[in-house]
Amino acid sequence: MNQSIKGIVLSLAGLVLFFGSLQAQTDTAAVLKKISDDVFTNGKSYINLRFLCKQVGQRLSGSHGAAKAVVETARMLREAGADTVYLQECMVPHWVRGAKEVATLELGKGKTYNLKVAALGNSVGTPGSGIKAQVIEVKSFDELNKLGEAGVKGKIVFYNYPMNPTYINAFRAYGEAGVYRGRGPSMAAKYGAIGVITRTLSPNLDDYPHTGSTVYNDSFPKLPAVAVSTNDAEYLSKALASGPKEVYIKTNCRSLPDTVSYNVVGEIRGSEFPNEVLTVGGHLDSWDLAEGAHDDGAGCVQSIEVIRTFKSAGIRPKRTIRAVMFMNEENGLRGGTKYAEIAVAEKEKKFIFALESDAGGFTPRGFGYTMNAQQGQKFASWKNLFYPYGASDFVPGGGGADIGPLYRQLQTPLAGLNPDSQRYMALHHATNDVFEEVSERELKLGAIVMTQLMWLVSEYGL
Amino acid sequence: MNQSIKGIVLSLAGLVLFFGSLQAQTDTAAVLKKISDDVFTNGKSYINLRFLCKQVGQRLSGSHGAAKAVVETARMLREAGADTVYLQECMVPHWVRGAKEVATLELGKGKTYNLKVAALGNSVGTPGSGIKAQVIEVKSFDELNKLGEAGVKGKIVFYNYPMNPTYINAFRAYGEAGVYRGRGPSMAAKYGAIGVITRTLSPNLDDYPHTGSTVYNDSFPKLPAVAVSTNDAEYLSKALASGPKEVYIKTNCRSLPDTVSYNVVGEIRGSEFPNEVLTVGGHLDSWDLAEGAHDDGAGCVQSIEVIRTFKSAGIRPKRTIRAVMFMNEENGLRGGTKYAEIAVAEKEKKFIFALESDAGGFTPRGFGYTMNAQQGQKFASWKNLFYPYGASDFVPGGGGADIGPLYRQLQTPLAGLNPDSQRYMALHHATNDVFEEVSERELKLGAIVMTQLMWLVSEYGL
Repeated sequence: MNQSIKGIVLSLAGLVLFFGSLQAQTDTAAVLKKISDDVFTNGKSYINLRFLCKQVGQRLSGSHGAAKAVVETARMLREAGADTVYLQECMVPHWVRGAKEVATLELGKGKTYNLKVAALGNSVGTPGSGIKAQVIEVKSFDELNKLGEAGVKGKIVFYNYPMNPTYINAFRAYGEAGVYRGRGPSMAAKYGAIGVITRTLSPNLDDYPHTGSTVYNDSFPKLPAVAVSTNDAEYLSKALASGPKEVYIKTNCRSLPDTVSYNVVGEIRGSEFPNEVLTVGGHLDSWDLAEGAHDDGAGCVQSIEVIRTFKSAGIRPKRTIRAVMFMNEENGLRGGTKYAEIAVAEKEKKFIFALESDAGGFTPRGFGYTMNAQQGQKFASWKNLFYPYGASDFVPGGGGADIGPLYRQLQTPLAGLNPDSQRYMALHHATNDVFEEVSERELKLGAIVMTQLMWLVSEYGL
Repeated sequence: MNQSIKGIVLSLAGLVLFFGSLQAQTDTAAVLKKISDDVFTNGKSYINLRFLCKQVGQRLSGSHGAAKAVVETARMLREAGADTVYLQECMVPHWVRGAKEVATLELGKGKTYNLKVAALGNSVGTPGSGIKAQVIEVKSFDELNKLGEAGVKGKIVFYNYPMNPTYINAFRAYGEAGVYRGRGPSMAAKYGAIGVITRTLSPNLDDYPHTGSTVYNDSFPKLPAVAVSTNDAEYLSKALASGPKEVYIKTNCRSLPDTVSYNVVGEIRGSEFPNEVLTVGGHLDSWDLAEGAHDDGAGCVQSIEVIRTFKSAGIRPKRTIRAVMFMNEENGLRGGTKYAEIAVAEKEKKFIFALESDAGGFTPRGFGYTMNAQQGQKFASWKNLFYPYGASDFVPGGGGADIGPLYRQLQTPLAGLNPDSQRYMALHHATNDVFEEVSERELKLGAIVMTQLMWLVSEYGL
């Protein structure tokens, strides 16, 4: 073959490859559009979320609401058309708030001010008579360490560390300020404090105290701990500036024995590789204060919607798709842990991908991903397909708390839906995390890009 | 010079250029960050918006609210630190709704149903006794044309064209369905109809009728026209499916003589090129049904925030920055038209750029731009600077209604802020467009990227 003919042959081969790949691209885009149209036209995620919020309501692990949520989401998965729906039993912590907590600031001359507070999740209650002591405000652990036992012993420590308002990504500020909720009580206990107040993790100045887990260090006494609303954190700080003050705190929370609960799983069997399992999920439990609309009712109904859309649009996945409602993300992660434990035991199956939506039902911006370099390259190559849906920001890092154990146990590649984060922290773990705060179109758009991504992985693997 | 020395010199020159440009980039990024930090930390847009919504309220052109809004935003501009604040007088239409409109569907056997309706802006009222006639539902102008005079004469035409839910960009669906609100009444009048009902332009099924301008064609009689809520559009459509029905409509709106009003302008004089004017604005008028929080209180307070941030962050613009509250965007565009008219007369000034925010105070995604190719290239070269702020989607096309006349008269390059559009149409021109629907962080993020863009143009020109 002379060079010029070889050149022509190569060019023709190139053209065939080029048009072949162009056709594949067109076909792929057409499937993504079909998914989008189906969700916007027939989608049930918003209706399901309304039910979960208004007919089920709060669903903290171990509660009646959580039990009801298991039954109802199993029904939703059946109605969505899952081939099989089943439960995975797991034991979960059973923390209860008890009667509404009280924190009263003594202003002197018989005057008092009731601070708006919520006991932190997992925290111990005060004695029946409550606790009363001088409040010491610190801005950081550094300040606490400097005060030491001499400054802290017998007192109530008030961590007043605001979320950094200048970070664009709200989760960054949450991560930074969140350590005071998580480790603050035990750090204060180390120096002999008798109680803790933490500033609510919200960027807004308002009246909603936000709960959330605290994690005790077993080396120290477990202190009662409450979050105070941001407005009242400011109020308390101002009051303390004019001189020492005492606060009376009474919380009624306690941990009951672990109880049985469930992950809820709905599956569509893969047509070509049924033993290759793709997991998509959110967590079914919420805090007790609210309906858990964004955290994480949204992720649950979006995952159910993935199943519904495959069925409704008549798209048969090559690989098995599992929608999972994980139990107990908020205060134990027992559901996610159990799911991975069962996965490890299912030797004949390969858990090749997992996606979680647990950052709210807001407009999706893209996905974060945790996987090896080769998988990551393939994953990121899809980003432009998501540009028409406004979700092409693919960034390394991310996944979700509930699917983390899958990665740790089986190196399953992970992704997390990254919605716009601006509104999330103002309602996270608080009474204002309600259905009315969810936009139907934003929720559906999240479900769309999740379904699209699940289809891509089911079709092409990773 | 031998080649190798020349090579070294060139390399060194390249290095200098490289590091020089790297330094410039770093400096530029630092200024953008300074702007962002200042807005998040000291910003007043949210407080100003609360005032505009709750203390001023509705501000339809010609209303008391509009007059009050002129005074109050002039104050805000002074407080923001504008070098000069002044008004531009213009005559505006003065349409008034009058007493709340009524539309009653006759269900037979003496039963009736009150449809939730709102008279369309600029529409004429019914006679005092109202109008009553059979309702004919059409899905499109095509259907109307087919019915012709025989099917339409003496009747009330009901345009039931839903917004296409499958479009990702809500403005695309608005543009498509909006023609029935705009041209529907005159099209029906052409065939002898006596009144018009249009389906509300909302993607959601709910109970809010949305008003908005209709534009009469002077060749035909002006018909009374109302928008019906999406839920009631569905209800009416179902009722009509079971047989012909009559509707009674009474609206009380009318157009009073044109009245005087104002654009409000606040300026920071440019340090190097004071005669080069950069305009940034929103429109001050709103519909009468609501507070006009997203439409377009947001754009006004964000434009004021541009001025405040330059002053607060100690950034002196090289070119003059003008924040403009345009009057009468909703039903006449008289403010925008007047602004361009005055600009044309200001011969010594060059209007080198204009930016409008009139798509809601939601999370910004980027900017649309209308300018010549060379300017567009420079403009688009900045997009990566906005990636850390989530607003790097720069797309050709766009600007804003109020700045459109500047482009048409002076070829001023235009840009429009493109916020996420998913939530906008559910509250546009309706009673639920209230302050509570605005997220403080989303509003501020919009103000941030607007200020950043204004600084870039003030610093580097276009």
